[in-house]
Amino acid sequence: MSTNNTINLKNRPKGRPSLDDFDITTSEIPEVQEGELLLGAKYVSVDPYLRGRMSDAPSYVPPFELNKPIKSGVVAEVLESKNDAFAKGEFVVGELAWKEQQVVKGDGLMKVDPDQAALSAYLGVLGMTGLTAYHGLMEIGRPVKGETLIVSGAAGAVGSIVGQIGKTLGMQVVGIAGSDEKVEMLKSQFGFDEVINYKTTENMTEAIAEACPNGVDVYFDNVGGEISDAVLFNINKFSRTINCGAISVYNNTEAPKSMSVQPFLVKKSSLMQGFIVTDYADKNKEAIQQLSEWLQQEKLHYTETIKEGFKQIPQAFLDLFEGKNKGKMIVKL
Amino acid sequence: MSTNNTINLKNRPKGRPSLDDFDITTSEIPEVQEGELLLGAKYVSVDPYLRGRMSDAPSYVPPFELNKPIKSGVVAEVLESKNDAFAKGEFVVGELAWKEQQVVKGDGLMKVDPDQAALSAYLGVLGMTGLTAYHGLMEIGRPVKGETLIVSGAAGAVGSIVGQIGKTLGMQVVGIAGSDEKVEMLKSQFGFDEVINYKTTENMTEAIAEACPNGVDVYFDNVGGEISDAVLFNINKFSRTINCGAISVYNNTEAPKSMSVQPFLVKKSSLMQGFIVTDYADKNKEAIQQLSEWLQQEKLHYTETIKEGFKQIPQAFLDLFEGKNKGKMIVKL
Repeated sequence: MSTNNTINLKNRPKGRPSLDDFDITTSEIPEVQEGELLLGAKYVSVDPYLRGRMSDAPSYVPPFELNKPIKSGVVAEVLESKNDAFAKGEFVVGELAWKEQQVVKGDGLMKVDPDQAALSAYLGVLGMTGLTAYHGLMEIGRPVKGETLIVSGAAGAVGSIVGQIGKTLGMQVVGIAGSDEKVEMLKSQFGFDEVINYKTTENMTEAIAEACPNGVDVYFDNVGGEISDAVLFNINKFSRTINCGAISVYNNTEAPKSMSVQPFLVKKSSLMQGFIVTDYADKNKEAIQQLSEWLQQEKLHYTETIKEGFKQIPQAFLDLFEGKNKGKMIVKL
Repeated sequence: MSTNNTINLKNRPKGRPSLDDFDITTSEIPEVQEGELLLGAKYVSVDPYLRGRMSDAPSYVPPFELNKPIKSGVVAEVLESKNDAFAKGEFVVGELAWKEQQVVKGDGLMKVDPDQAALSAYLGVLGMTGLTAYHGLMEIGRPVKGETLIVSGAAGAVGSIVGQIGKTLGMQVVGIAGSDEKVEMLKSQFGFDEVINYKTTENMTEAIAEACPNGVDVYFDNVGGEISDAVLFNINKFSRTINCGAISVYNNTEAPKSMSVQPFLVKKSSLMQGFIVTDYADKNKEAIQQLSEWLQQEKLHYTETIKEGFKQIPQAFLDLFEGKNKGKMIVKL
């Protein structure tokens, strides 16, 4: 096989992305030069944050270029190697192009062991997703046993891990999710104490008050918008909000409006802080060690939504914005 | 003199308070019992946060009771004492009722020295105002030499001290204020590098970008609302916003709307945190020591707007919401 499919960014989406914003091209695979290796993609991660990189507004990561491949977390097999650090047949994870096969130099790749955990886990609970949950909760949330943790986007990849870490640390854990099926899953599989279905709940402020009789000490926020407004009415003195994402407003073309948070923060001596997982890269090693330990102790469980086939990547990405995933959304090749 | 004026809360204000919400009653002064002392008010502090205590919504401090005296920071002279801890002729500061004279037990009073600083300073730069500026900036803002600090409500009591502390620490300091006179005062008397008059500026976002060419690292926010929205567009990665007050929305009867802050905090790994000065009471001693030292070194200057006469207290309070004060607003008896 010497030709190869690539998914490129065709247009910068206005508002919600659509399939028209992507196109698939074929190209030759270049020869592997000294120091390089040829990778075959096995698992491709699609994540809400990629939406930001499709716009050219300044953000925490540079935007994707038009008519160039999109990149995300990928687990790949080494198909051929002229780089001493990697051998044929090994598996690696890293930020790679949406290509079936690609030749790279090997910078920034981490080897992963398929015997220690499923390969797809390195895109999730032992990868960026798990690290995002862990660093956000530990560094900003500063969780305390007995406190109440509420998680929005609880059935998402990060949210479900956050809730389980909270339970492992002895917190009261409440989730917010968008279907009865997700509610059931979070309670039965992931051990959440209470879960609120925001789509069928009329008064979220009251529902949160009921689910959190001692108020909210830590809020892990993946969504922003009206759900976060409702949480604000229930925060405790010295509470901490982790701003991990704001998926509910990512597709707004104008700066979205919400309730003013400032008066709540003043009244409650409360903290809100955003982050990106790379802010805490110096603590990744201890985090992965802790997450692996919990995984082996079966304190952490994870769910994946796996789509099959390279050409399904754009649709899998679009499905994120309709909440069609349970846990980490991954495309398997 | 055995009768005595008191200012009571007559109505809980709806929206902006008015003179009708207060009334003045006279009463006898009770006899001083063993352990008590009689105080004569000398300087009374009026502060925006008192507005919150006039509502009965839950807040960080309990609400004032209807038809009972309002309380705030007061410097008083000991007129008579049957308490060994205080002698006639000494001066004290504490939270006291809006009464010309009152009999108290002495709990929570701190003695002040009229030879070390003007008595009114103990309501301002060496009192709650100075401590609010100091603790907020140091504990939440974590200022670093060379960084850019922007202060809203810069000509207010807290704001003008915050800016001067920033300059003392080697920061680039930009203020936001509401009149050309205040702009001039902040530059010439308080050493602000740049000051923006928000009332005459059409595009605040651009004006802030111009005044802060390196972006905003620390934002000391006294106002909330649209001014804070404009600052958000200019925050740097890892910036810190101190939510000290939100005077622009205190009189709203409905939960006010502003731009969603969450996407900005996520993009910039940025922090916002509210506080009240008592959160850091364990650090008051070192703070007063540092503030006194800077005052003696003439690194801190302060402005007061002093009204005369007990019955002027309600009007002085109302004037705060029209920005009629420069620096700390105080009523002298």
